[in-house]
Amino acid sequence: MYDLSRYSPHDLTANTIRTLAMDAVQAAESGHPGTPMGLADLAVVLWGQFLRHNPADPKWPNRDRFILSAGHASMLLYSLLHLSGYDLPLEELKTFRQWGSHTPGHPENYETPGVETTTGPLGQGIGNAVGMTIAERWLAAQYNRPNYEIIDHHTYVIVSDGDLMEGISHEACSLAGHLSLGKLIVFYDDNKITIDGPTDLAWSDDVPARFHAYKWHVQQVDGHDPRAIADVIEAARAETLRPSLIAVHTHIGYGSPHKQDTNSAHGEPLGEEEIRLTKENLGWPPEAKFYVPEGACDYLRPRAARDWQRSWQALFDAYAADYPELAQQFLVAQRGDLPQGWDENLPAFEAGKQLATRASSGKVVEALAARIPWLLGGSADLTGSVKTQAGDATHLTGSDFSGRYIHYGIREHAMAAAMSGMALHGGVRPFGGTFLIFSDYMRPSIRLAAMMGLPVIYVFTHDSIGLGEDGPTHQPVEHLASLRAIVNLTTLRPADATETVEAWRLALDRKDGPTALILTRQGLPTLDREQLAAPENVARGAYVLSDVEQPAAILIGTGSEVHIALAAQQMLQKEQIAVRVVSMPSWELFDAQPAGYRDSVLPPDISARVAVEAAGKLGWERYVGMNGAIVGLERYGASAPYQEIYEHLGITAKAVVQAAKELLS
Amino acid sequence: MYDLSRYSPHDLTANTIRTLAMDAVQAAESGHPGTPMGLADLAVVLWGQFLRHNPADPKWPNRDRFILSAGHASMLLYSLLHLSGYDLPLEELKTFRQWGSHTPGHPENYETPGVETTTGPLGQGIGNAVGMTIAERWLAAQYNRPNYEIIDHHTYVIVSDGDLMEGISHEACSLAGHLSLGKLIVFYDDNKITIDGPTDLAWSDDVPARFHAYKWHVQQVDGHDPRAIADVIEAARAETLRPSLIAVHTHIGYGSPHKQDTNSAHGEPLGEEEIRLTKENLGWPPEAKFYVPEGACDYLRPRAARDWQRSWQALFDAYAADYPELAQQFLVAQRGDLPQGWDENLPAFEAGKQLATRASSGKVVEALAARIPWLLGGSADLTGSVKTQAGDATHLTGSDFSGRYIHYGIREHAMAAAMSGMALHGGVRPFGGTFLIFSDYMRPSIRLAAMMGLPVIYVFTHDSIGLGEDGPTHQPVEHLASLRAIVNLTTLRPADATETVEAWRLALDRKDGPTALILTRQGLPTLDREQLAAPENVARGAYVLSDVEQPAAILIGTGSEVHIALAAQQMLQKEQIAVRVVSMPSWELFDAQPAGYRDSVLPPDISARVAVEAAGKLGWERYVGMNGAIVGLERYGASAPYQEIYEHLGITAKAVVQAAKELLS
Repeated sequence: MYDLSRYSPHDLTANTIRTLAMDAVQAAESGHPGTPMGLADLAVVLWGQFLRHNPADPKWPNRDRFILSAGHASMLLYSLLHLSGYDLPLEELKTFRQWGSHTPGHPENYETPGVETTTGPLGQGIGNAVGMTIAERWLAAQYNRPNYEIIDHHTYVIVSDGDLMEGISHEACSLAGHLSLGKLIVFYDDNKITIDGPTDLAWSDDVPARFHAYKWHVQQVDGHDPRAIADVIEAARAETLRPSLIAVHTHIGYGSPHKQDTNSAHGEPLGEEEIRLTKENLGWPPEAKFYVPEGACDYLRPRAARDWQRSWQALFDAYAADYPELAQQFLVAQRGDLPQGWDENLPAFEAGKQLATRASSGKVVEALAARIPWLLGGSADLTGSVKTQAGDATHLTGSDFSGRYIHYGIREHAMAAAMSGMALHGGVRPFGGTFLIFSDYMRPSIRLAAMMGLPVIYVFTHDSIGLGEDGPTHQPVEHLASLRAIVNLTTLRPADATETVEAWRLALDRKDGPTALILTRQGLPTLDREQLAAPENVARGAYVLSDVEQPAAILIGTGSEVHIALAAQQMLQKEQIAVRVVSMPSWELFDAQPAGYRDSVLPPDISARVAVEAAGKLGWERYVGMNGAIVGLERYGASAPYQEIYEHLGITAKAVVQAAKELLS
Repeated sequence: MYDLSRYSPHDLTANTIRTLAMDAVQAAESGHPGTPMGLADLAVVLWGQFLRHNPADPKWPNRDRFILSAGHASMLLYSLLHLSGYDLPLEELKTFRQWGSHTPGHPENYETPGVETTTGPLGQGIGNAVGMTIAERWLAAQYNRPNYEIIDHHTYVIVSDGDLMEGISHEACSLAGHLSLGKLIVFYDDNKITIDGPTDLAWSDDVPARFHAYKWHVQQVDGHDPRAIADVIEAARAETLRPSLIAVHTHIGYGSPHKQDTNSAHGEPLGEEEIRLTKENLGWPPEAKFYVPEGACDYLRPRAARDWQRSWQALFDAYAADYPELAQQFLVAQRGDLPQGWDENLPAFEAGKQLATRASSGKVVEALAARIPWLLGGSADLTGSVKTQAGDATHLTGSDFSGRYIHYGIREHAMAAAMSGMALHGGVRPFGGTFLIFSDYMRPSIRLAAMMGLPVIYVFTHDSIGLGEDGPTHQPVEHLASLRAIVNLTTLRPADATETVEAWRLALDRKDGPTALILTRQGLPTLDREQLAAPENVARGAYVLSDVEQPAAILIGTGSEVHIALAAQQMLQKEQIAVRVVSMPSWELFDAQPAGYRDSVLPPDISARVAVEAAGKLGWERYVGMNGAIVGLERYGASAPYQEIYEHLGITAKAVVQAAKELLS
């Protein structure tokens, strides 16, 4: 009765995706059915005729990347993965959005094989994709040799209206155009519908013109004409100098008699009745659920099974014979490891000398760059200030990717998302810098990096009122607390040059999540480690820096304020009050220590505790208790030379002394 | 010897600005001299021939707005204010960037008369300006009557390369084009230099083409040709349907023999020697510092003194006679007050009924909109979810501003910045909604709203794992802590419909800073206030919701978790353990209470305390102490029906009971 044999393999596959999406969203009673329905034709052409990948090894280094920036259309991706032969059985699609399934509401790369990145918050996927394309081109520039194109793949992205309205899309796509990322091919799902209604409720952009302005190659196509779609993809692949935008005119909820082209197909189930009608309309058995007809996999699987990886592996083996050193490097980097001896040349610093931690960080970067060839630095237009460019690192340009530094421009958000994309791609180790205050511009990407467990390193300098004259708009107050609040982000605020070395060591050693290095603008004396505890203790998050016999109180500082704590200790000593000073560069690392260690640093019987940090006080009660004292900020900063701000705002040794004495009295 | 009489008044004024900028930055030993030098010609034309303002009353409602989005060029603005007759004596310019001066490193509207908004973090100023222009046009649509154009002014903005690289510029300018903000005139300082070097290190955008794509009117001009500048401004003013971008080709560090057109003129003093050479080059007395020659004010002051305000006031008085009610409304709104009886029709809610706080919020919005005509709602494409649109509120369109709702599009950052701009403009009361998770996209603007003390209201719904199936990418974990960390932002997380009413009341009553309402997606029973304490206590931040005689422990909850605390109280009661339940919708409000009140809610002698909140734990030690218990999250969420997530992640009454019993044992 429902003769599916009349379908072309393409249509059979596309309609399978459409009906799977409807059924899964209906079963979950939540989700976004319309976008997968609209995009099914495009996706089937791309996955059926172009994508090179390997369902048996989703991590094959030279695979094409496919990024669903419009993450709410997750059922599209899950259907494609299932139909292509990834380890995602139909049962998983039936448990869409349920506890323990591998089919969460939005794609999560750590949950589902074949999902390249975690998307959903709009604009993030395109930002990641730009980073992946940078990584691909950089690896190609470094490792490819004549006849050995060991890295040579495309990055395909589907973006929605929403992705393109988000600011990050501007930053990322402008950067992509600037860097001539010819292997980036972006499909813009131009369906004219957002959750609230027609896009023209809020949007009048001429998207093709906008991307022309970014120096992209721009095409348009009917999203339901498979042959035309294949043609524009061919043309986009043929264009090697510019990234490609293809505006794909689709119908959201394609096939639904009452909901096609309406926002009610966007963010909610179509409803049992409409699903039945849609299936009838598509010539599908109307009562069947999660129906994958015979032949629906035949279109995608053969290509996926062509084993691109095997021929690549043969190529790589020959390459390894001809270029053993390069091949070795490539493999080490792919594993996320570092070269042997990578940290053996880290600088030592003379005690007593004044040096901002951003400056000592710059010297560490210099040493690391010499040992880790795939360390890729950058900054959001503050290179001289954040000191992330090693002396001999030239910067990437549209025509030359041999360098090792990226001028991200004044695009903090895209920098963060691109670094995540590079880490996701593999083979490179990205780090990038800006002022701590601008971490606010990057938070959506930082959060996702933490969620995904990506070993990205953020260099955040100018970390407090200590930046001085630029004033309160540039002086972080709440930022330390806000970053400490992010699950799986490690923050490290070193107290001097020596702690900075250790902080970098920890950041690079970390494989399962991002690290934020929080550094000063102002100079700090390098602590004398012959008098004080060894800097290796940074790894424990907090340690007793300077002790006394039977301390009456504990002073805890981080970063630049450790020096204030030490000065306070001296002042108290003159009054015969013996106190311990604890340096606490990282809350997260300290909290992860065994209770025994934590109690040895902060003995429970010493309740007189003073924390000093030139930042908001939120959270310090964890270490000083409800009755401890916190010398911190409850206001915004001010514009003046920094010493005066510290003085006026009461972040001083005198204030610490007074707080300690009050606690002891 | 230095005959300044050869200068035209324009040149005399422009060079005074240039030399003031050089001298001030040099004296401060920090700052950005080059941009003011490059922009001086443009600024003198604009302020000398076009700007309508009143130095004697910087808050005159119908003044033109001038926004320096490129806030680092603050010395340009300070020089203009000084030379125009604002209350900013030369002495203030001499103490640029010093403690206690009114000339901070970046412009702060609360420090300096005539500064319209606080800028520095790039892209914020243009976002504010879009909001100001929306407010102007909306007020004109509401209040103007034939022959009474009581609101009719322009908003002029100077943006830098950096502003236009930032993502927020895309969101804001796309929105401005969509809404046909013809009175917005933006000057793009096209000087081809950023801090790191030439803009082409990181940027290849065709800016005019980009703005064409946004449906803007675009012009270009030589930034050192006063007559040409005047012509393009005239043309921009004549264009009433589209916002205008004028690409102004300037030379950074104009006049400096060695630093013009280089990045060394950007972010550091020119140096004494180069300043001398530049002054010589400009024909200026080379040794004079902060020299304001006779006549340098003659160009800007007469215009400023023309007293536009007096004729406006006459017009307004006549208007008030003809339209007394409208005039009265206008004045009340301008003062930031609310209409009498604004909160008398707020809804009451039946105890026991299930209602998400986003839904009760929607009903409150409905009631408020009926009483406060200048309440202007909006959302970033989640209208149906965040429920910010009152039933009869139509939305603004490019051709019709009679509505009271703004479809901001998927542009959270621009929404926040625009709302700040509306609040800065005055006469409207903006609020806007999105999911709490997307507050991350808005943080730079939220922070500045808090710093400026703007009475903006953010409606953040879907506030926890309680949103369920959308999964961890959409489930806030760290966001409550991150918002609580922001100085002068009040967060309110009501526990039920009744607390939601109070939260809205407090938000609207607040005049000196922003408020974030944190609301659930999931339904919650309305608490029975005959059994429990009165909801008016929300104003105190935390209150004893359900008490017992001699409580052995205290359970503290916020929002949806108050219900878990109440359930735990019942369970404990069955085991003869009497505990108090505290509802704590707002940390900030509670912390501001007198110690006596705080101790009455959380008596120091009851140390067994359990906090329960479906969020990260950071900061809760403030209320439960180091030895208290926190039932919260230390991981990201998951995609599933929300009840299951609560169960699996251990945010349950059972967990609270267990924690309490452990504390008591």
